[in-house]
Amino acid sequence: MQNLVATALRYEDSKLYVLDQRRLPAEEFWHDCQDENQLIALIQSLAIRGAPLLGIAATLWVGHCARRGDNATRLTKTIAALRASRPTAVNLMNYLDRLQALLDNGADNTALVADAVAIFNEDVTLCDAMSRHGAALVKPGAKILTHCNTGGLATAGIGTAIGVIITAHRDHKNIKVWVDETRPLFQGGRLTAWEMQNAGVPYQIICDSMAASLMQQGNVDMVVVGADRIARNGDFANKIGTYSLAVLAHYHRVPFYVVAPRTTIDVNCAGGITIPIEQRDANEVRGVSGSFGSFQWAPEQAPVFNPAFDVTPAALVTGWVLDTGVVSPDEVAAGALAYPTD
Amino acid sequence: MQNLVATALRYEDSKLYVLDQRRLPAEEFWHDCQDENQLIALIQSLAIRGAPLLGIAATLWVGHCARRGDNATRLTKTIAALRASRPTAVNLMNYLDRLQALLDNGADNTALVADAVAIFNEDVTLCDAMSRHGAALVKPGAKILTHCNTGGLATAGIGTAIGVIITAHRDHKNIKVWVDETRPLFQGGRLTAWEMQNAGVPYQIICDSMAASLMQQGNVDMVVVGADRIARNGDFANKIGTYSLAVLAHYHRVPFYVVAPRTTIDVNCAGGITIPIEQRDANEVRGVSGSFGSFQWAPEQAPVFNPAFDVTPAALVTGWVLDTGVVSPDEVAAGALAYPTD
Repeated sequence: MQNLVATALRYEDSKLYVLDQRRLPAEEFWHDCQDENQLIALIQSLAIRGAPLLGIAATLWVGHCARRGDNATRLTKTIAALRASRPTAVNLMNYLDRLQALLDNGADNTALVADAVAIFNEDVTLCDAMSRHGAALVKPGAKILTHCNTGGLATAGIGTAIGVIITAHRDHKNIKVWVDETRPLFQGGRLTAWEMQNAGVPYQIICDSMAASLMQQGNVDMVVVGADRIARNGDFANKIGTYSLAVLAHYHRVPFYVVAPRTTIDVNCAGGITIPIEQRDANEVRGVSGSFGSFQWAPEQAPVFNPAFDVTPAALVTGWVLDTGVVSPDEVAAGALAYPTD
Repeated sequence: MQNLVATALRYEDSKLYVLDQRRLPAEEFWHDCQDENQLIALIQSLAIRGAPLLGIAATLWVGHCARRGDNATRLTKTIAALRASRPTAVNLMNYLDRLQALLDNGADNTALVADAVAIFNEDVTLCDAMSRHGAALVKPGAKILTHCNTGGLATAGIGTAIGVIITAHRDHKNIKVWVDETRPLFQGGRLTAWEMQNAGVPYQIICDSMAASLMQQGNVDMVVVGADRIARNGDFANKIGTYSLAVLAHYHRVPFYVVAPRTTIDVNCAGGITIPIEQRDANEVRGVSGSFGSFQWAPEQAPVFNPAFDVTPAALVTGWVLDTGVVSPDEVAAGALAYPTD
């Protein structure tokens, strides 16, 4: 399989390397993946994260297994194990189902490798397309609020919502970004802040609870977020806190856009209520872990509620920024998200 | 001055002791106050916090200075320095203005000491009264969401919003509490969780961004919060994130109550827009400090926006639970908050 390079994922000289995002921004540590169990552990612990990127990491591992000569039975097992590693993000399932369908149709290992590489390259292209469509919506001087991390660390390319932001910045739109720190794992305060700094985009980190106050003061012109799964009625699951922003944006009449490739659409999902929401470890909320160690501020054994995602209903969305263009609420109501990607 | 004991403040044998709330719940460390500069530093660093309690700490210090024989000029200077220590909470100003008025009217030191003690004891009584009025609003089986810390650690008595919660629990209302962790300083995840545990109230800690999702699922029956300053039109300032909850509760038709003594009302303040909002240190958002040390997860020197409070307009409030009773929006509109405490 050819060498492939993304911000947080590299396939080089027949090895898959994964950047440990738990340790960013203090430390850039790359894991050399030895087997599927290690990769699954890295995905489940959010060392590798972002709906598109974790799907691509799994895809490249299957490509790697095909290249080294695993047979169809073994590959099918690998695909099933990876597919079950996290329950909410649908890119993982969509990409692996595509490889499994090839296998089921009798494709040889060379064809599987080629498709894994194609999925990686397609994600780069999808990011560019979304970013262009989204940047066209950004008004000069806009103050843009975003949540979690949706950039080069979450995709193989420039990103989804962050792709829109960086493209608008490169287009000299004179934007300013409010970065939600995104408790409990601080993907905003750690990762998005790091990406904004690297891209030279003016930004300030805020606690998630401060977004409402900024909107109240007229200091937010637009909210852009990514998605982990979009139902065909336009409801979508994304990092916990997204629904909160959608309600606040609606109340303050701030445009609210979700940015995702069509590979994030689950055409089998009629509405958000059926999207499974992962409950994560209580220790994530009791304290913090990072390159500096693990610390707890809550009382020992304090009971915690820790859903990884929430579901935003379509009614709160101003537009869906897809690789194929911006889709309006009327178009979604007319079925624009109800057909498969291919 | 007689001995006085609260959860986080003690006057014993002519010394003022302050519990360092930054180190809770891991460590119970008491500072022995030596001078006013030390007390001001403890207030500004939030070692001692909570609108009523920090006002009472300053009050007891003035009582202590009167007892040891400071003259009126010296006492006036001490009052002015303490009064300027934090800009938003109005109890501090109301209590110290009351002592200054006594001084200005020629009261002797014995009278000042007696009034400082009276302010402490009154706060205990005010808490009991608010708690009874508020608990009467709680329906059996209610799931109650609260923000920041408003209990025995924030007052001389049982608390304001937490006073309502603990009283409803003692009344066997079978309640359950959602504790907002309250970034950036985790007064919920550290202090309210500790108080819920000590009082045996069933609770779970959530990240601030999770409240909306719980409301969406019908899992919040009531929101109760405290206040740092209430304007005479009913607008109020409270810990950052309160306004966010008020909008979310409004959208989901969840009753939203603010619980505070009449000493928190600023009758000179016509509306929330004029309440000064303190901006705090960027490092509070870049990372965390506690008994375990200080750690940063954001990029070095990452720009931050860190207001300590936000302002909730009266239109989003279901009722004001005061020591004198529950006041409705109609009563507030008719001027129920527009007259002085005495």
